[in-house]
Formats: sequence, structure tokens, C-alpha cells
Amino acid sequence: MTSSPVTQVIETGGAHLASGLAKVEARLRDVAAAAGELVGTWAGDTIAAGGKRLRPLLVLLAAGDDNAAAVRAATAVELVHAATLVHDDVLDSAPLRRGRPTVWSTAGREAAIVTGDHLFARAFSELVVNGQVAQIRVLSRASSALASGELMQRADAWDTTVTVERYLERCELKTARLFEAACELGELSAHPTRAPALGAFGRRIGLAFQILDDVLDVSGPPERTGKHRGTDLLDGTVTLPLILAGIEDLDLRAVTTSVQAEAVCERIAHSGALGRSRERALIHVADAKRALPEGMPVAQRRAFELVADGVVERYS
Amino acid sequence: MTSSPVTQVIETGGAHLASGLAKVEARLRDVAAAAGELVGTWAGDTIAAGGKRLRPLLVLLAAGDDNAAAVRAATAVELVHAATLVHDDVLDSAPLRRGRPTVWSTAGREAAIVTGDHLFARAFSELVVNGQVAQIRVLSRASSALASGELMQRADAWDTTVTVERYLERCELKTARLFEAACELGELSAHPTRAPALGAFGRRIGLAFQILDDVLDVSGPPERTGKHRGTDLLDGTVTLPLILAGIEDLDLRAVTTSVQAEAVCERIAHSGALGRSRERALIHVADAKRALPEGMPVAQRRAFELVADGVVERYS
Repeated sequence: MTSSPVTQVIETGGAHLASGLAKVEARLRDVAAAAGELVGTWAGDTIAAGGKRLRPLLVLLAAGDDNAAAVRAATAVELVHAATLVHDDVLDSAPLRRGRPTVWSTAGREAAIVTGDHLFARAFSELVVNGQVAQIRVLSRASSALASGELMQRADAWDTTVTVERYLERCELKTARLFEAACELGELSAHPTRAPALGAFGRRIGLAFQILDDVLDVSGPPERTGKHRGTDLLDGTVTLPLILAGIEDLDLRAVTTSVQAEAVCERIAHSGALGRSRERALIHVADAKRALPEGMPVAQRRAFELVADGVVERYS
Repeated sequence: MTSSPVTQVIETGGAHLASGLAKVEARLRDVAAAAGELVGTWAGDTIAAGGKRLRPLLVLLAAGDDNAAAVRAATAVELVHAATLVHDDVLDSAPLRRGRPTVWSTAGREAAIVTGDHLFARAFSELVVNGQVAQIRVLSRASSALASGELMQRADAWDTTVTVERYLERCELKTARLFEAACELGELSAHPTRAPALGAFGRRIGLAFQILDDVLDVSGPPERTGKHRGTDLLDGTVTLPLILAGIEDLDLRAVTTSVQAEAVCERIAHSGALGRSRERALIHVADAKRALPEGMPVAQRRAFELVADGVVERYS
């Protein structure tokens, strides 16, 4: 999402969103600062690099409130997300994240592993204050899924025979489950004893988000993504555009330079696979909207729909 | 501890210890197997490499029972410990752990990072089933401390001016807090609403354990430790024996081969610092025993004392 859809969501969804997000920012800064000088610097950089804060937004939107429980849940989700990013950057040897140097590239792989571990542990320390076992269950399951998804990505690396089904399962694990968790944590913050109903929305939006992210890696432009086109290809990560392009003679291991990656991106684009991938994402977005429960307050529903549209708009 | 003190503890502490440890082993295997084929293999190797299972033993001993809650808590503590080991081995580039190849050396750094993350997330998934917020709080705090301790070790690497106080603070964070957590989790498994009283024992034993582990790195022999003497020195980790040896002309960065490390170990041993380090550890062991609450059942007290003695015996 560009800032404009987020602003729209905030204007539509209620005053608690802007104030809630501000509280989450403050809390994230405190958590980083409390981690001691060195890790505080590294963790603080990661957190300050910011990003869209889409997951905290979903928590607050699902909660319909910016009470302390919702803010803690939103902070915890973002901490798990930040921990994952720090470790992912080590795994991918990524020099930049959102145009800024990554923790590992600045401070070394050791610092990055420890910083990620710290952020991860702090997520649970944060959430436990809410005193809800159900919330811990939601976050720990999503965290397990994240790790499994990353692992599946490693296991499938360089394998161009990966099926669409397996690709979707990976997206589910490494992205969609945390979106689902964000929605459910928001709901549980507002209504601890009610069964969450917004998980399906979060899961589908997460799936669309990951597919569109993978499209963006191929389509670029770099000015927008803050990284070269085809970084996934260079990591050996086989994503939907490549699968749908059906390039049969491709030896991914032979793609080792950004010029070569760029050339493969061109081939994928010319095959029409980017459009077909986007279409699949849009189906998940439509499914997500349909999954919103009936009887939801109009403003809240409209804000969720704007989130869904914003996920798409960023990639259109 | 060699197997003999553990056996003594099990014989003394009650029948629930042997059955509880067997249940923990089975549960650890299930958790590894449920992680999918690849991570299951890596996580399974880590778990199968075993070790002393000292932390689960403390949980079961503190619980005085092998009910499902105690077994889950014991499993969760060991999963956090295993996660830390997997990441530590990456940080230290350690080829062997307990004489077996480490995850990163077999499967790569990426696999090791993900495996550690997975084990860590699963620890919370396991513990949350007990439905006790207090237990999650204990484990998440200990996990944050672990990460902070690792970080402090990185921050202080190669610095031979580290003070005893700072060294002890590091041991506290990276080792003692998880021992403390093990005891408290055991107590909370048996008596969810009672304030835990065995944390102080765990903390002190943990401190002694770490000091004696650091002594062992200098004293060897390698046949016993499964690694060369002086591996800490080669990692730039300044431990109590080196601090107490007061070798003023040492440039730790110049110690790069195991022959050189061996020579520094000899200098430390000749200074008498190993004995002085052991003495300090023994003070913590005595403190630990004194911290056992009055009115504790005789068999349970005796078993805790045997654990304390076992920690020392391994290193005598």
C-alpha cells in the first residue's frame, strides 16, 4: 500500500486506528530501547525502517479499539514480523531492506541472528501481559508456520518443478498465517471469550499480498521496490510468475548475475505470467472481502475492504 | 553430570522422574517429527544428540509429578534450550556438538537458523497448552534473557578487560535464567496459583553450571568435552578462568590456532585460576542448596542436592 490507501483506511475505520498506530510505534521504540545498547541499535534500526505496519493495522481494525490489549497484540505481531525480516535477510544475504542496510550487512550475521531471536522472544513477553492463553496460542502457531514456510522455501530452492499448490502452501505458511493471526489477535483483544471470525479474511489477504509481492519482484521497477528485479530468482526461490511462465529450459542455478536475472524477468513478463499471477491474487482478495462476517459495522467493513484494495493497489 | 549422578537423582527423587523423562523424550521426538521431513531431520538430530536433559529434570523435580502439564513444561524448556544450541553453533561456527556434527555444518547456516526458529516457536506452542499465562511469562522472560546474554557475549568478544561482574551478568542471562525458569515452570505445573519458590535454586545452579562449563573449556580433556581445549578463546569469549588468570600481555585476536589456544589454556591452568574459578562455582552451589525452601519433602530436597552435587561432579 502507498500511504494514500493507509490514510483512507485510517480515515474510514475510526479514530482509534491513528492513535493505536502511534501507540504501537512508541511501544516498538521502547521495546528496542529496553534491549540494551547494541541490540537496541540494531533492533531499533529494523523497527525504524518501518514499512507499512499492515499487520498492526489489521490488529487494531479487527479490535475496533486502541485499548492496551489491542496495542500490545499489534506490537507483538509486528515484533514477530520484524524478527522474521532480520533472519530472512541473513538467509537471503540481502544487503538492503526498504532501501536501508540490513542488520546482518551492518553488524554481521551473528548480530542479526541474536537480534531476531531477541525480537521474537520480546513478542511473547509483550503479548503475555494481556493474560490471554488464546492469544499466545494464535501467535505461537503462526510463528511455527512462519518457520516452516521459510524452511519449505529453502527445501524447494532451485527446483523449477515446484507446483502451484506447493507454492501456495508455502505462501500460506510464511505469510498468510501471520495476517490471519493479526486479525484474530485483534478480535481476541476486544472480545476475549468470543471465537474469532476474521481469520479467513486475514489469511486470504495474506495470500494475495505474497503473490503480489512475488509479482513485484519480477515486474519491478527497482525505484519502487528498493531492490533489483529478480532477487528471488538469484536466491533460487521459485514463485508463481515463474511457475506460470512455464519456461522449460531454465536452469535456475545458472542465473547468477543481476543482468541474467533481469533477462529471465523479461521472459516471464513476455509470457503473460505476471497478469495471470495478478488475477489469482485478485481472486483471493475477492474471497477475502466475501469472508468478512455479515453484521459487521459499516465503517469497519469499509475499512477492511480498503485494506484489501490497498494490497492490490500497491501492485497495480 | 555423568549418568551416575542422574541415576542417583532419579532413584532418590521419586518414580515420576524416570517416567517423566521418558515422556519428555517421546514428546520431543513427536515435535521434531511434526516439523516436516527436512526440519524434522535437523531438529530430530539436535534433539537426539540429547545431552543431560538437566533442565527437564529440574522441571519434573520441582513439579514433584509427571502429569501432562509438567511434561509439557519440561519439553518446552528443552525446546528453547535446543533452539539456542542450534543458533549458538551457527554463531560459534562450531563443527561438533556433543561429538556429533552440528545442524549448520551438515545442512548449512540457513537451515540452522530456520531450525532454531522452529524449535523456539514450538516451545511456546507446547507450553500454551497448559493454559497458564504465568508459565508463558516465565518462559518468554527467560528467552529474552538468553538472547540478551548471547548478545552481550558478542558485544564483549575479544575484550580481555571484561570484569568478573560483567561476566557473571552474562552467565546469569545466557544460562542461569533458563535454569530458574525450569524450576518455576515445574512448580507452576503442580501448583498454578502458588508463587514459585525454587527459582533461586535454579538460578544459582545455573550460574555454577556455566562457570564450571567455562572451566572445562580450559581444563579439558577433549575426550571428555568432545571439543578442543580453548574453543572459547578462539571465539573471543572471555570467561572467568581467563579473567582470574590476569594475563596482562594477552592479545586474544592473535590466538587463532588450536595450538595457540592450548598454550593459553596452559598459562591459565598454571596461574591457579581454574581452582579459583571452581571455588566460586562451589559457593554458588552451596548458596543454591541453602536457597531450597524449608519444609520441602525430604526425598525432594535430597534429589535437588544431588542435582547440585552432580553439576559439580561432572567438573571435578
